[in-house]
Amino acid sequence: MSRYILTLSCPDQKGILGTVSHRLFDIGGNILENAQCTEIKSDTFCMRTCFEIDGVPPDTINDALGKVAEEFSAEFSLREEKQLPKVLIMVSRYDHCLLDLFYKKRTGELAIEIPIVVSNHTDLKEHAEDNGAAFQHIPVTPQTREEAEYELLKVIKEYDIDFIVLARYMQILSENFCHQLHGRIINIHHSFLPSFRGAKPYHQAWDRGVKLIGATAHYVTPALDEGPILAQDIARVTHNDTPESMEQKGREIERRVLSRAVKAHSSGRAFLLGDRTVVFEH
Amino acid sequence: MSRYILTLSCPDQKGILGTVSHRLFDIGGNILENAQCTEIKSDTFCMRTCFEIDGVPPDTINDALGKVAEEFSAEFSLREEKQLPKVLIMVSRYDHCLLDLFYKKRTGELAIEIPIVVSNHTDLKEHAEDNGAAFQHIPVTPQTREEAEYELLKVIKEYDIDFIVLARYMQILSENFCHQLHGRIINIHHSFLPSFRGAKPYHQAWDRGVKLIGATAHYVTPALDEGPILAQDIARVTHNDTPESMEQKGREIERRVLSRAVKAHSSGRAFLLGDRTVVFEH
Amino acid sequence: MSRYILTLSCPDQKGILGTVSHRLFDIGGNILENAQCTEIKSDTFCMRTCFEIDGVPPDTINDALGKVAEEFSAEFSLREEKQLPKVLIMVSRYDHCLLDLFYKKRTGELAIEIPIVVSNHTDLKEHAEDNGAAFQHIPVTPQTREEAEYELLKVIKEYDIDFIVLARYMQILSENFCHQLHGRIINIHHSFLPSFRGAKPYHQAWDRGVKLIGATAHYVTPALDEGPILAQDIARVTHNDTPESMEQKGREIERRVLSRAVKAHSSGRAFLLGDRTVVFEH
Amino acid sequence: MSRYILTLSCPDQKGILGTVSHRLFDIGGNILENAQCTEIKSDTFCMRTCFEIDGVPPDTINDALGKVAEEFSAEFSLREEKQLPKVLIMVSRYDHCLLDLFYKKRTGELAIEIPIVVSNHTDLKEHAEDNGAAFQHIPVTPQTREEAEYELLKVIKEYDIDFIVLARYMQILSENFCHQLHGRIINIHHSFLPSFRGAKPYHQAWDRGVKLIGATAHYVTPALDEGPILAQDIARVTHNDTPESMEQKGREIERRVLSRAVKAHSSGRAFLLGDRTVVFEH
Repeated sequence: MSRYILTLSCPDQKGILGTVSHRLFDIGGNILENAQCTEIKSDTFCMRTCFEIDGVPPDTINDALGKVAEEFSAEFSLREEKQLPKVLIMVSRYDHCLLDLFYKKRTGELAIEIPIVVSNHTDLKEHAEDNGAAFQHIPVTPQTREEAEYELLKVIKEYDIDFIVLARYMQILSENFCHQLHGRIINIHHSFLPSFRGAKPYHQAWDRGVKLIGATAHYVTPALDEGPILAQDIARVTHNDTPESMEQKGREIERRVLSRAVKAHSSGRAFLLGDRTVVFEH
Repeated sequence: MSRYILTLSCPDQKGILGTVSHRLFDIGGNILENAQCTEIKSDTFCMRTCFEIDGVPPDTINDALGKVAEEFSAEFSLREEKQLPKVLIMVSRYDHCLLDLFYKKRTGELAIEIPIVVSNHTDLKEHAEDNGAAFQHIPVTPQTREEAEYELLKVIKEYDIDFIVLARYMQILSENFCHQLHGRIINIHHSFLPSFRGAKPYHQAWDRGVKLIGATAHYVTPALDEGPILAQDIARVTHNDTPESMEQKGREIERRVLSRAVKAHSSGRAFLLGDRTVVFEH
Repeated sequence: MSRYILTLSCPDQKGILGTVSHRLFDIGGNILENAQCTEIKSDTFCMRTCFEIDGVPPDTINDALGKVAEEFSAEFSLREEKQLPKVLIMVSRYDHCLLDLFYKKRTGELAIEIPIVVSNHTDLKEHAEDNGAAFQHIPVTPQTREEAEYELLKVIKEYDIDFIVLARYMQILSENFCHQLHGRIINIHHSFLPSFRGAKPYHQAWDRGVKLIGATAHYVTPALDEGPILAQDIARVTHNDTPESMEQKGREIERRVLSRAVKAHSSGRAFLLGDRTVVFEH
Repeated sequence: MSRYILTLSCPDQKGILGTVSHRLFDIGGNILENAQCTEIKSDTFCMRTCFEIDGVPPDTINDALGKVAEEFSAEFSLREEKQLPKVLIMVSRYDHCLLDLFYKKRTGELAIEIPIVVSNHTDLKEHAEDNGAAFQHIPVTPQTREEAEYELLKVIKEYDIDFIVLARYMQILSENFCHQLHGRIINIHHSFLPSFRGAKPYHQAWDRGVKLIGATAHYVTPALDEGPILAQDIARVTHNDTPESMEQKGREIERRVLSRAVKAHSSGRAFLLGDRTVVFEH
């Protein structure tokens, strides 16, 4: 028995769900899980189906689904569940998100591979290597960004990377790079966006006197901290908190929110639709 | 255009989703929302489908679905969305849950009718009547329970009640009554079950020194406070709290949890499977 | 035995706590509860003390505390606990916050009096009167604002109002009025400030695709939705939510957050320090 | 300037706070933070004071406070803030709590030393040593428990241990051992106590169909999972969760709750009073 994950999206219209599930039935597939919805702002139908099938070559499945996709002008992707997505993690000096992603990969909570970690610093080299990942140091300055991104693209190609996670990577990516990898870069920002974009959000939060701090995982777009939101969470703070204690409390939220977003994306439960996302519960 | 809600459950097997959605397509239905899952403990497939259809008589739809149901040994129910479920609310003296249900009915958050309120006291008569419901006083003692339940059954029949909500009703229902209305009575218990069953749960919680208090909405079964759970929530308490302040904080949780459960059940998103429930997100 | 609540704030310095508690001891007071902290941004010491005392005239207590206050350049206020603060509630058409404040006043959760409700509409007159409050209709347009506020000030004087709660009052107060009642007006804004200031925050939140919505209670300052924050809370939303369902879910957060802020302020647990607040846990 | 943390508890009575703060003032101490309350069930006054003082020998401070303590029949403890408590961590095979405690020690979130880790297995030896702690393997069977605890007591003495953290240590401690270290052992139990005591709480939770799972940190007493609660938290689960996914989600709650309890205890913010605790906010 092979187990596949199908994700599909298209302009909303009649009969999609029935057609897809019928076609899968025709070729011998058994649907194990299915989630779908129509995102109302973009009027887009999204669907994630997990099915099992025995002795049918992937090409046959792809053909069958390709015909449905054509009929409904849908985009779809199909992946055997055991083929884990390959994730490139980018970091600077903070280690809490990186360590948590490695930890959850190890326990099986995240079904991903992390073949390589890239950083503009060398501080976290040992952590990467201890966890069985390669480490590449790509220093970057505003002047060398183009060059650095060129190198990064080589790494992505070399390691056949599916998506990138910015696990507190403190550099800005170029507009061009963001466009090329649209929907394939996830960032964690340490505030409940849209509040406190940009630098030092815990200091901003402290200054404003908020009673809750938060973290937001989002797809990266060229506009800084403006990308479509995948996950958010918060923690209470009081008048006793300082920017430093907010940072400590915040680290727990950041790692939790980022790993939730990585789980959603890597398991095919996240859809990017314009400036919004659909994220199926998991 | 008429809009219907279909709920269906059956032993898990291949092809159900495809068959149902195909059959709906055949008779001209357009699926607007669909949620389904396989509950693993009971190996039961559950499905809730909201579809619209034009100019097709209900009997035709029922026939089409009846055939699918038969094929898969499924139970199903079909209801036009605008036919609101009729709810009987039972109370004793506490008014917070009752008032919140009326409020959410009025704002449209709960798509239900509340034709009648029944109580073993008369304190809340005015609240019921102010909100356009009839009120019936059915006093009850351990000795008169059978008689009281007989009267209650007459009310249920007279008002064509779909389900009952015990909104802090402080009497125990007989085993027989629970069986007759299996899956059609929802209770709110003011603790995070299975902790603190029975009387005075806030006092029990205070005694035990917990740091969180909770409330639980569940289907009623003959075993007191043991029924399948529909919704739970909690609030923080501290060493400063007293049983009285827990009660105050608890009222907010109770009304929130109960209305969430009523919403799930009344909109066809809750399934009762043995001692567990499936509740689709809403 | 009489029970008093003392609140005091002053520039942080040595010996305040000891002096105050000693002075209270000298005149026969017994401290029941005490909370204090130094707010670091403004370097201000804040203290709330609940004490009981027998047969000592208020003037004697005030004198004793007045001397301490002078010594430490402190502001203080003293109130017998049973003298409930008088609250004026302002509303427009939404009733959920108003009803919840009345409810919690009735159950004793809020130890306040609500002698009068003022509105620029007449929709909620009956609710006010049913709950034993007077109702005054003060219509207001941008042109008549000055006049309307003049009338409002008369009401405040007439009813000896301690503070004002804007329970979804949809009008802007003048800079002058805000200054006159600085620290005495609490507003509920239906977003997670500083996100989504101004009009239609649920629509803004939906547009931005956030995964959490929130509400914020704050002291009113002339800058719209910029005042010092007293309380915040959030609820999860998903891609399935619409601006309308966010509004429904939001109502629960709004009433909860507003009543928490009213409780903190009315019980002397909230201190306004520049653009921040200290709120002692309760 | 030296900075001290004083904790004190005694039967509730008049004048304690004033006396303590006055005495500190007399010897030149400046109170930086103070928290106190009267726990109502045991009628016990609890107080935690952080003060700074210059050039006064600890003996002088202890003498001054000792007199106050005697006067009020109080227990007190005094510790210079920079003298970090020494913590012995006990583990079996699960590493998530251990790693999180080490992480938070490293970032300064927990102001503790962890000189040694003790385990009945050898799996986590490397983790301990990588984090600069000694590791001692003390195997234990029901037959050898007495002997093992004797060895453990030697370790406690040798390393001058202040308190013990059971970070998913899967063995039961003897009644005698619990008594000797009363109030000095903190355990994390992976359920929302008092629900699901004993073995396999996630399986119990799944079986019962709860919609929230939790974790509880508590002081250890001879009665299994019955000790006074220090901290609790929860996470939502749905019908889709399995015991395994509950375990994954639970690990996040366990480490969060345990580190919160360790922080409260190690910073003098936790008081054990009979079967309840006072935990000051931090």
